[in-house]
Amino acid sequence: MSHHESIKIVIVGANAAGLRAGARAKRLMPDADIKVIDQGVYISYGACGMPYVVSGDIENIDELRKTTYGVIRDPEFFRSAKGLNVVIQTVAEKIDRESKTLTCKSLVTGETSQYPYDKLVLATGASPIMIPGVPTDNPRVSTFKTFEDALAMQQAFQKGEIGRIGLVGAGPIGCELAEAASAMWGAETVLIDAAPNILPAILDPEMARPVENHFRSEGVEVYVDCPLDGIAETEDGLVIKTPKGEFKVDHVVIAVGVRPNSKIAADCGLEIGKGGGIVVDEKMATSDPDIFAAGDCVELKHLLTGQPIQLPLGSLANREGRVIGSNLGGGDERFGPVIGSAAVKVFDFNVAATGLTEKAAGEAGFNVGVAWGSYTHIADYYPDSENLHLKLVYDKSTTRLLGLQGYSKGEVVKRIDVFAALLKCEGKLEDLLDLEFAYAPPYAPALELLNIIGCIARDSLLEGVEALPPNSDISDRLIVDLRREHESTDRPLVEDNILKLPFETFRDTWNQVPKDGPIVCVCTKGIRSCEAVRILNQQGYPDVRYIGGGTLIKLDQ
Amino acid sequence: MSHHESIKIVIVGANAAGLRAGARAKRLMPDADIKVIDQGVYISYGACGMPYVVSGDIENIDELRKTTYGVIRDPEFFRSAKGLNVVIQTVAEKIDRESKTLTCKSLVTGETSQYPYDKLVLATGASPIMIPGVPTDNPRVSTFKTFEDALAMQQAFQKGEIGRIGLVGAGPIGCELAEAASAMWGAETVLIDAAPNILPAILDPEMARPVENHFRSEGVEVYVDCPLDGIAETEDGLVIKTPKGEFKVDHVVIAVGVRPNSKIAADCGLEIGKGGGIVVDEKMATSDPDIFAAGDCVELKHLLTGQPIQLPLGSLANREGRVIGSNLGGGDERFGPVIGSAAVKVFDFNVAATGLTEKAAGEAGFNVGVAWGSYTHIADYYPDSENLHLKLVYDKSTTRLLGLQGYSKGEVVKRIDVFAALLKCEGKLEDLLDLEFAYAPPYAPALELLNIIGCIARDSLLEGVEALPPNSDISDRLIVDLRREHESTDRPLVEDNILKLPFETFRDTWNQVPKDGPIVCVCTKGIRSCEAVRILNQQGYPDVRYIGGGTLIKLDQ
Repeated sequence: MSHHESIKIVIVGANAAGLRAGARAKRLMPDADIKVIDQGVYISYGACGMPYVVSGDIENIDELRKTTYGVIRDPEFFRSAKGLNVVIQTVAEKIDRESKTLTCKSLVTGETSQYPYDKLVLATGASPIMIPGVPTDNPRVSTFKTFEDALAMQQAFQKGEIGRIGLVGAGPIGCELAEAASAMWGAETVLIDAAPNILPAILDPEMARPVENHFRSEGVEVYVDCPLDGIAETEDGLVIKTPKGEFKVDHVVIAVGVRPNSKIAADCGLEIGKGGGIVVDEKMATSDPDIFAAGDCVELKHLLTGQPIQLPLGSLANREGRVIGSNLGGGDERFGPVIGSAAVKVFDFNVAATGLTEKAAGEAGFNVGVAWGSYTHIADYYPDSENLHLKLVYDKSTTRLLGLQGYSKGEVVKRIDVFAALLKCEGKLEDLLDLEFAYAPPYAPALELLNIIGCIARDSLLEGVEALPPNSDISDRLIVDLRREHESTDRPLVEDNILKLPFETFRDTWNQVPKDGPIVCVCTKGIRSCEAVRILNQQGYPDVRYIGGGTLIKLDQ
Repeated sequence: MSHHESIKIVIVGANAAGLRAGARAKRLMPDADIKVIDQGVYISYGACGMPYVVSGDIENIDELRKTTYGVIRDPEFFRSAKGLNVVIQTVAEKIDRESKTLTCKSLVTGETSQYPYDKLVLATGASPIMIPGVPTDNPRVSTFKTFEDALAMQQAFQKGEIGRIGLVGAGPIGCELAEAASAMWGAETVLIDAAPNILPAILDPEMARPVENHFRSEGVEVYVDCPLDGIAETEDGLVIKTPKGEFKVDHVVIAVGVRPNSKIAADCGLEIGKGGGIVVDEKMATSDPDIFAAGDCVELKHLLTGQPIQLPLGSLANREGRVIGSNLGGGDERFGPVIGSAAVKVFDFNVAATGLTEKAAGEAGFNVGVAWGSYTHIADYYPDSENLHLKLVYDKSTTRLLGLQGYSKGEVVKRIDVFAALLKCEGKLEDLLDLEFAYAPPYAPALELLNIIGCIARDSLLEGVEALPPNSDISDRLIVDLRREHESTDRPLVEDNILKLPFETFRDTWNQVPKDGPIVCVCTKGIRSCEAVRILNQQGYPDVRYIGGGTLIKLDQ
């Protein structure tokens, strides 16, 4: 690759996307001169691990910037191991596309310097969104984005300065911090979100309710449909003002999302998307073919909606960086449209999702069908078997798969990742029935819920066996409770109108069900009640439904 | 569905495939008359859970035949809950296809009876293969297939009758029983297999070695390349004779596979495959359109080789049964070709695979390429992070994915199942790079090994960075050890010819490597050594390789 001998590459941003791009380019072009500019002191750290530093799961924050073999990833490491010249505490201020020069300013000396480039890579990341009216100069009101943010919060807890904390925004960061503050530090914790439920980007309301209730059972106060009206500073602390009340706290973290750092790109005339992200093509090139961009500062394309989307995820940033590195080195690699898989740990609940929620699919114009399913995450007779709850979103016209969301004290991420692979292949409902799983009792049940939920959706679509959402108001229906006596303690039915007909003898007893009026069948996983609906439908009952996923999903509070 | 009113369906075999077919058919055709014949006393039990009854993980064997809500699945349950008429202790003896009649004989009364059918379903299962010359009338020589087998073995251990056990056949059953005998009962355990490695259907030798060594570290004696020459019965026990020695034991379990129970099908002229399985089409119909077959008694088609295959797995049997039930009910469902995913727990090792091994892919005529990779199963800084080891098999001409096998003390089954979804979609190497994973530190690393191993394979295929198998003899190469000092204790190198050049400064020190002669680079995961190979290649070194997956895979003993 001698024709690359003198190529000058300048990269702005020394985290996942920028460094991966640089390291890959250097591997392909050993003689390339690659400089990486970063405004921070700390580089190449696993920002996604920061909540677990606050929670104490990770004892030393430096673990986040070590290689798997224990070397701190500092500029010297990148020089001697990766052949990259990393310049820290330096702000990229201006791009001159005519002369192909980047102007930077040292935060230490204040001096300005010029970096000529043949190819420029922007991996400028994103910044936390602040809510208008929230004080920005109070150290007790913070965001949680940088290494320094995490260090400051860890220290505040260690010093006992935070006895009561308010978290504004119940996305992944807010949820992870809520667990950290509450479980590790015993802080009274208030988590609020303006959306109808927590984790609104990945969960629909009825799937979020059990997670919200799990927070509450662990002592975290959760308020949804609860926008922040303002934060008042008083003598003995802060007051969070909301329509659902005022909450006195010692500290507030605003975690309502991030905004791409695209100003330097916009200033030099690069195309910027409506959401503020730098527009890139499949090769991760911007509107200037000599300038690439990757990571939280770009906008990606959603595979299912075809629309632009911001997805600030370290896992994607890494892959985008590699694509740029390959293309700088003469390759022709593409970074395709994305689907947006995500996972969040909420105490001992595992929560994960991929693709579109029902809400997002509806907004995107699909003819949305949904199905709920519950089943054990491993063989039911194997120790520590837990219930897994999934919601499937698909298009009823085409049967194309659109999304999956789930929670469980057992395994859920595997199901999400398998489904994500199908989404990438433009899978349909029928493909769910055809999936093969590595089956052994410690790892999976013989009947896998992803197979089952495909059947449930088809039963509904083709055979008219219809479910109600798990958070439905069923007070105006006759409830046929198919559970055994001992199961009723799991979720006692508080409604009046109940007929108890255990499923195991239902083919002998179904005719005790009055034929007039609306009926809802309930069990614990939705399997028995689904079959009961079919039996009653076949006997001519006019309006029979069941609770999708069973009653283990508690009704709305 | 009134036109089905009087349909008579007879099903032979009351386990996963037969009962699922019957229950589904009954759901679709409430007036169908469905009889299920079984020769056993116990029906509908989770046979895959039996090793865990022996191991004590499952306390009561009846757990294997309960629904998830605790009802025993006996004939009465199937009558009152599922509308099926199950007749036990009755052997199906003969099919008369002309008169459409099944002749059965009661094992209790000895009486013969006739079952007329409109549609017949054969779910006759499979029987353990016995090795010629092995005594079949000695109660101390057994197989492990039925509920009764599991009960007998559990009782023999409980009575202290088995202090030393021999397991012939190191497939999943042999491996699971080895753990059960050794860990639960403290039995001295000998596991032998005629193949070059344990779990030969799912692992290649170099991936099996660490699992074999793990068995040994837990006290199980493992002998591979070790066919059974015979079993001698002596006064004080049994003697297992092999080329690798004689082993005195109290009990021998023969677990060398199963053979389809297809005699009744063959006797009435149905088409039988070379492997002895009943031939079925995609609708699971036999060569007689009024007779269906499913479960361990049929032969399936392998998606990748196009060849017939026997895959006796409960998870497949369930899905096959559903397809038959749907088709009996007027549907048009298909059971597609299979890929054969599998998982086995070996003490605290998780072992899983899907698709073809390198050996099987070679035999099937593919232009086989392989890649090995190791990486942490979750974020390396998160507690309980473990190394995950994978081997990828693909076709070098088409880049089509063919197989994946792996082991880890951490998660491995997720990776196998995700890969299996890609296999079903006829995925290629490039699709691995494009996979999205739900990423959060407790669930996944930011760099997912399935993405990485796709890159490794492409580095090899397109860029000439070549690995040696982890079990290679490297004594004739100069070893460049890129590890840090503390890592060497994990796998001390015993070879003589070692140059220690830690990777973190390798770009300053590579020129200390002599240019003549063959070189092998080693680290712990194969990441650093792979990069070192590239650096040396670029400097004109003529013969540089690295150990695929790093040195954590110990070399052959």
